Amino acid sequence: MKILLPDTVPLNPALPSGWEAVTIDCREEIPAEHHDAEALVVWGASRRHLASAAENLGQLRLVQSLSAGVEGMLAAGFDERVAIATGAGLHSLTVSEHALALLLSLVRRLPESLEAQRRSEWSTEIGGLQPLHPEGRITTLIGARVLIWGFGQIGQTLAPTLRALGAEVRGAARSAGTRAGFEVIADGDVLAALPEVDVLIDILPASEATAGAIGREALAALPDHALVVNVGRGATVDQTALREALEAGTIGGAALDVTDPEPLPADDPLWDAPRLLITPHAAGGRPVGADERISANVRALVDGREILHVASR
Amino acid sequence: MKILLPDTVPLNPALPSGWEAVTIDCREEIPAEHHDAEALVVWGASRRHLASAAENLGQLRLVQSLSAGVEGMLAAGFDERVAIATGAGLHSLTVSEHALALLLSLVRRLPESLEAQRRSEWSTEIGGLQPLHPEGRITTLIGARVLIWGFGQIGQTLAPTLRALGAEVRGAARSAGTRAGFEVIADGDVLAALPEVDVLIDILPASEATAGAIGREALAALPDHALVVNVGRGATVDQTALREALEAGTIGGAALDVTDPEPLPADDPLWDAPRLLITPHAAGGRPVGADERISANVRALVDGREILHVASR
Repeated sequence: MKILLPDTVPLNPALPSGWEAVTIDCREEIPAEHHDAEALVVWGASRRHLASAAENLGQLRLVQSLSAGVEGMLAAGFDERVAIATGAGLHSLTVSEHALALLLSLVRRLPESLEAQRRSEWSTEIGGLQPLHPEGRITTLIGARVLIWGFGQIGQTLAPTLRALGAEVRGAARSAGTRAGFEVIADGDVLAALPEVDVLIDILPASEATAGAIGREALAALPDHALVVNVGRGATVDQTALREALEAGTIGGAALDVTDPEPLPADDPLWDAPRLLITPHAAGGRPVGADERISANVRALVDGREILHVASR
Repeated sequence: MKILLPDTVPLNPALPSGWEAVTIDCREEIPAEHHDAEALVVWGASRRHLASAAENLGQLRLVQSLSAGVEGMLAAGFDERVAIATGAGLHSLTVSEHALALLLSLVRRLPESLEAQRRSEWSTEIGGLQPLHPEGRITTLIGARVLIWGFGQIGQTLAPTLRALGAEVRGAARSAGTRAGFEVIADGDVLAALPEVDVLIDILPASEATAGAIGREALAALPDHALVVNVGRGATVDQTALREALEAGTIGGAALDVTDPEPLPADDPLWDAPRLLITPHAAGGRPVGADERISANVRALVDGREILHVASR
C-alpha cells in the first residue's frame, strides 16, 4: 500500500506494516508509477495536482489535508468513496500564538515604540508611571472584555491564555452555550454585544454567511477604544469600512493577518491606515502534529475505524 | 489615624474605622497639617518628599511602597521603628504581559512585518507556507527552550503562559530547585546552560552581583538564533556587548524595556542596532491590587499582625 506525501513540508509519519510513503512534487501531476496510491496527503498542492489525483488514483481511499479548509479538494472531483479529511486542529497552536502576538503588540503599543525608536526617542508618553486603565485606550489585557468570533479549536486554544493574562473572554459561534469553560453567544447576538467589547478577535471561516461580518455596522457598534484582530479569513472584514473606522478614530486599532484579496495589492490604501498592523498570512502555514494525524488516519483506514475530521460533502 | 496617599495613581483603599486617607502631592514636602500621619504610601515620590516624611512624620509606623524596589525609601532616613513594605507582586501581571508582548513580537517577526507594511509589501518571506522550525531562526514558542533569569513573582507569573504556548521553561535564581512547578537552576550554572537556550528572559534586579550579567561571555554562549528580552533592570545587560552581538549576528534578536541609563540618550548607538526592539520602561508603571495591599497592611498594623513584604534593612 502506498501513501503520497507532499514535498512542501517535512513529514515522517509512522505507518502500518506493508505501507510505503513516497514524497512527490505537489505542484505537478501525479507520476504514472504512483497511480496505485491509496492515500494522498495535501499541503500547498496545485489545482493541477489535485485534478490529476482525482482522475488517476483509482485505488485512492483517503485524502488527508493538512489545512483546515478543504475547498480545493472538494472541488477537485474525487470519487465519493474517497474520504477527505481536514487538518482541523493542526494550526491551533500557531494561529493562536500569532493572534496573541498581534493583540499584545497593539495593547502594548509596540508599533508606536518602534516609531519612537526610529527617532531615537525615549517616549515618556508610552513608558514610566501610567494609569492601569487610561481613558479611551486599552493598554493591558487585565480586565479587558474579549470576544472571540468563531470559537472553534483555535479560539478554544487562545481563550485560556487570554484569561490567564487577566482578560474576560467570551466566544461567539453558531449556537450559544458553554464551550471549553467559556460562555459562547450566538452569531446573531454579536452585534448587540459589541458595545461591551474591548477586543474583538475574528477567527471566522470564509463563507457566504461570514462575508463582511465585521463591516460598517459592527465597527460602529464597538467602542472607540476597541481593538480588532483578524486571523480568520480576509473576506470576513469589510476592509473599506475598517480603514474608514481607523481613519475616523471610531475604533482604537486593528491587526490583520488575512486580507481580501491576498496578497494585498501594493496600491491598496489599507497599507497606510493608521493604527493598523498587517502581517502577510503568517499565523499558520506550518502544521503541528501532521505526522501523528496522518498515522492515525491511515491506521483508521486499515482497521476500518472512523477517520478523524472527515469533511462532509 | 491618618494615611497619606500619593497623587500619582488613583487609590481608594478600604480602611479600618477611625482611619482617614489624604491624597497629597508626592513631589513636594509633607504639609505640616499631615505630620500626624501613621502610614505613608509611596509611588513616584521625589527624594525631597521622602526626606520630609522621614524627618517630620513622628508617629509614622508604615511606609507602603507600590514599587518592588525600595532603595529610595531605605536611603531616606526613616526611623528603624518604621516598617518599609515593598510592592512585591503588584507588577507581576503587567510586567509579564509586556515581556510576553516583546518576546512574541520578536518570534512572530512583527518589526519586519511593519517594515514590509511601510513599503506596501506582502512579504512571502514572512508569510505563507513555512517550516515550523526553520534553520537558524526561532519563529514559534512551540518547543522553544526558555530560561527566565530572575525567577521571582514576575517570572513565576510568566512561566505558565509560556509553557501553555508550547515552550520548555526553566528558571534561574540564587539557589537551584523546583519553584511553582518549574525547574530552577542556580545563577552560577547559567553560563553553562546558555548554549541550550533559545530564549533568555532577564528579570534580574539591579545589584552588584547582577551588573553586566548578560555580557560578552553570556552572549557568546547563546546560540546564534537566541532571543534576549530584558524587563529586569538595564544595568544587568552590557549594552555595548549586546549591540556588537546583534551587529555580528551572533544572537538572533533582542528586546529591551530597560536600559542604562534611562532615558537612553538620543545619541546612543543602541537605538539603531539591528533586530532590536526598545520600549521606554513601559512594562510596569501601574500597580495592580494596590488598594488591597494597602488595606491588608494597614489592617495588619492595627491588629499587630505581620506586615506583608517588609524590606529587610
